[in-house]
Amino acid sequence: MERIEQHASFGGRQEVWRHASSSLNGDARFGIYLPPAALRGERCPVLYWLSGLTCTEQNFITKAGAQEHAARHEVIVVAPDTSPRGKAVANDASYDLGQGAGFYVDATEAPWSAHYRMQVYVAQELPALVERYFAASDARGIFGHSMGGHGALVTALRHPGRYRSVSAFAPIVAPSQVPWGEKAFAAYFGADRAAWRAWDAVELVKTAAERLPLFVDQGDADEFLATQLRPELLRAACAAAGHPLTLRMQPGYDHSYYFIASFLADHFAHHAQALRG
Amino acid sequence: MERIEQHASFGGRQEVWRHASSSLNGDARFGIYLPPAALRGERCPVLYWLSGLTCTEQNFITKAGAQEHAARHEVIVVAPDTSPRGKAVANDASYDLGQGAGFYVDATEAPWSAHYRMQVYVAQELPALVERYFAASDARGIFGHSMGGHGALVTALRHPGRYRSVSAFAPIVAPSQVPWGEKAFAAYFGADRAAWRAWDAVELVKTAAERLPLFVDQGDADEFLATQLRPELLRAACAAAGHPLTLRMQPGYDHSYYFIASFLADHFAHHAQALRG
Repeated sequence: MERIEQHASFGGRQEVWRHASSSLNGDARFGIYLPPAALRGERCPVLYWLSGLTCTEQNFITKAGAQEHAARHEVIVVAPDTSPRGKAVANDASYDLGQGAGFYVDATEAPWSAHYRMQVYVAQELPALVERYFAASDARGIFGHSMGGHGALVTALRHPGRYRSVSAFAPIVAPSQVPWGEKAFAAYFGADRAAWRAWDAVELVKTAAERLPLFVDQGDADEFLATQLRPELLRAACAAAGHPLTLRMQPGYDHSYYFIASFLADHFAHHAQALRG
Repeated sequence: MERIEQHASFGGRQEVWRHASSSLNGDARFGIYLPPAALRGERCPVLYWLSGLTCTEQNFITKAGAQEHAARHEVIVVAPDTSPRGKAVANDASYDLGQGAGFYVDATEAPWSAHYRMQVYVAQELPALVERYFAASDARGIFGHSMGGHGALVTALRHPGRYRSVSAFAPIVAPSQVPWGEKAFAAYFGADRAAWRAWDAVELVKTAAERLPLFVDQGDADEFLATQLRPELLRAACAAAGHPLTLRMQPGYDHSYYFIASFLADHFAHHAQALRG
């Protein structure tokens, strides 16, 4: 493991690390914000942030304004990259498949299956590493944006008991039913749609073993709302299953980090209550 | 004038505009954050932010977390580009001269003098435009970072009565005495150092007609502290001249936007008190 960036920030420290990942079969990077209490050696809860298409570990740590909230709540925030990277890693010329578009799944189809195992990386390898090498407790929350909102919902729903809280900004709630998800899942899992269900939040709430409340913000001026995000599908699935959901439609907000920054305080408050309550 | 971006943000709106600038003899861009009160048509005070070397109008509006503070204080924030731009505009291969490095001066030497008139743009043309086309009052404050901290200090000191408040993050306080400034000023003004004095904050405080308090934050782990920034020169000049200065050395902080974001709330409070008090 090598620390490649460190910056004082709101009394704590924003760092970026590079390490050899067994899950991804190559190098991986993640950002980690250590609040003041963590720098003093006190074990803090950890919030995992999953970014959207085209992002790296940099977008959230430079654009969201998260450090102020993390410092105030004394929560560690970990932001991984969105896919495996490198010349040896399969890729595609489009922005919504391959590098930068890992969808937080474990691919089963060649050539993707050699490296694209973001689910086991995010849910297992990365928390084990964070809890071993940093002042982190095993109290975990997870949140994300767009493809990363899908990632947060699916990761929490697939791992009952592993996360105390989950939230999402403008998530892809039903990848099996929208173009971004259909393209990625056909590549990563093949044409048999039955295999897709285990990676689709709208499918997973139908049989969720744990009623972890879902907290979702969605801008109503989001350019991807009707085609790719379709939060009404999550609302219907949660209503049918009796799964607790808070879905807030935010008037005038788009898909950008300006939207995320505007409501991030509420998400930190939601997670902090579960993580420290 | 053409609006090329708009995003809802903290109940207000972040916009980016492109317009033909008479000062710069070409197109110019600026970011403008309109707080909720301005969207309701109430005239709000305006804070001008000047960015550092290599920046455009994007850096501050995407990385600083300024919108939250601007919304809370109901202040408009305007962030111009750092130089004229375009194929017709003189440039240099280095990052610290030419495009991206306008130093907020009005150049007198060819080829720079044809377009590099950022001082008149920032102090005259841009405020006139903002106060005409937006819900802006004529209460103005100015602040900036590094080259833009120099720009804020110099612009305020050169225009007594025009700004109610000024502050800076890690400013170049004495461009005549450090490599960045010596290189730029030799190009923009020629070899005669007497002409440089009118663009150097440490020189200007010696004869300032107005005792506008200077509020400066500086990280003590800033990689440019000893070579390019040298805040002790400003401290000595202000002490000798009896010019009010608050200079805070912030332990462990570097030159990045992580530093700016960490102390931006204090700068907004400083400006808001002068602009709304």
